[in-house]
Amino acid sequence: MKILSFKLGGHVSFGPKVKKEEAVWDVLAIQSELQVLPSFSSSIVDGIALGFDFVEQIRKLVEAAEKSDNANSFKREFTEIEWLSPIPRTPKNIMCIGKNYDEHAKEMGAEAAPTDLMVFTKSPTAIAADGQTISIHADLSSKMDYEGELAIVIGKRGKNIPKNLAFDYVFGYTIANDVTARDLQEKHKQFFLGKSLDGTCPLGPYLVTKDEIPNPQDLTVVTKVNDEVRQNGSTKDMMFSVETLVSILSQHVTLEPGDVILTGTPAGVGKGMNPPQFLKAGDTVKVSIQGIGTLVNHFE
Amino acid sequence: MKILSFKLGGHVSFGPKVKKEEAVWDVLAIQSELQVLPSFSSSIVDGIALGFDFVEQIRKLVEAAEKSDNANSFKREFTEIEWLSPIPRTPKNIMCIGKNYDEHAKEMGAEAAPTDLMVFTKSPTAIAADGQTISIHADLSSKMDYEGELAIVIGKRGKNIPKNLAFDYVFGYTIANDVTARDLQEKHKQFFLGKSLDGTCPLGPYLVTKDEIPNPQDLTVVTKVNDEVRQNGSTKDMMFSVETLVSILSQHVTLEPGDVILTGTPAGVGKGMNPPQFLKAGDTVKVSIQGIGTLVNHFE
Repeated sequence: MKILSFKLGGHVSFGPKVKKEEAVWDVLAIQSELQVLPSFSSSIVDGIALGFDFVEQIRKLVEAAEKSDNANSFKREFTEIEWLSPIPRTPKNIMCIGKNYDEHAKEMGAEAAPTDLMVFTKSPTAIAADGQTISIHADLSSKMDYEGELAIVIGKRGKNIPKNLAFDYVFGYTIANDVTARDLQEKHKQFFLGKSLDGTCPLGPYLVTKDEIPNPQDLTVVTKVNDEVRQNGSTKDMMFSVETLVSILSQHVTLEPGDVILTGTPAGVGKGMNPPQFLKAGDTVKVSIQGIGTLVNHFE
Repeated sequence: MKILSFKLGGHVSFGPKVKKEEAVWDVLAIQSELQVLPSFSSSIVDGIALGFDFVEQIRKLVEAAEKSDNANSFKREFTEIEWLSPIPRTPKNIMCIGKNYDEHAKEMGAEAAPTDLMVFTKSPTAIAADGQTISIHADLSSKMDYEGELAIVIGKRGKNIPKNLAFDYVFGYTIANDVTARDLQEKHKQFFLGKSLDGTCPLGPYLVTKDEIPNPQDLTVVTKVNDEVRQNGSTKDMMFSVETLVSILSQHVTLEPGDVILTGTPAGVGKGMNPPQFLKAGDTVKVSIQGIGTLVNHFE
């Protein structure tokens, strides 16, 4: 199932795409109107904590809407909604893996990818949505760069998760652009400030449940700037796989439903080009991952 | 006002210390029983977002309790409550300043404190309370170290806060021990993992409102391990003051009520000793800051 979060007239909701239509089922409206389920979470983060039961609940809601006399009243056209990040607010900072692709580590000046996990965070106040215009933050940085990445969405609280059980703790996946102020990243040594400017963590467009991505280690990740292909990688080249990341992270940090983990970016960032090409006002960045979709953001 | 958070029989509450008694006023119980105010937030984070009005509300609640026939029924003895961190859960990761004291930067092997702010984060799942026993995490680290620090609690949402208005955004202060796994900090380069193990962010005992700390740049910070003084610094030696930290951070990251900023540690950490002295199971660490109190944690 592909779930999206949206806002319409001050009302925040979520739901799956309507088949063959450019619209979304407003599952909160369905539940509120038709009282299909004894209870249903109005928060997507609380919902995904229920795991696959949440997907089943959403299915029942959509079924009830389809059978009702006023099915159309529960559909929201893509043209009328404001898209939100599928997880509008993560319970802690977004956890990000540095240099998880060998070729990217090399273009960043390292001899090879690190043998020990490098983890930094982005503030949840940096989260942006698909389609959102993002500030280039020219007052703070002249080296804004993109990083297209597969993002893991955690569905279950866990500590010391063994690698062979890691997928039990994954709810699904989305796409991230780990927008980075290279100059601030370098200047401040620890990455947090250069990674946390408002708008620099677009996520979306969909949260795709894990059943639709049977092998997360065989997905193409393509990033285009103004339709020029800059990154064309595959998640099969990750140094630390999704399973390993979930397992190692959970040895250190308690994972919670709604946590988002950015798995690192393949080669082809602007800083790695010769000469380096940073983002300019007017640029559009598109990150596409097989089976998930395309995350588009315009920079101003 | 000194506010503490606590738990009693599954009920989470907060309130100020009862004068001359080892007890706390349960302000949620007062409001629920006596209906003193038209409304009152049951979450301390939502409360501090009201700024000084929140302090006034708490004063009114305590006054009403004192005047009531059953004042004692609203007091909770320190011996019966479980202390919580004054902010039990921060809205984003705890933001921490690295090497904000020159002498500490030197003991860590740097030539001097960095001229640009170094900011890393600790997961909110690492938050612990005064009095809580903390795991030494022997399975992950053999170099657990303490760092006594003044912690700022933000009371108001803000971006690009000018230095001269910074205190308007501060609600108060508490004490932090930025417990650090030195080996993980080094191994993983970025500090997040080595700083985020469960229990490694004790905060407390009180959240002290800013009116009680007219000059946060003149406070002694003393850390003892098993009653041996290890750190004996003063906040006057911070490279970046409280005002400057709030201002610079807010240029990069949107600050929110309930955010906690650790201002860095003075010299005297275990790693800086000759030979280094790391924490052992059985150790007790006490961090005392003038005007706030003493944060005590036992390690096992």
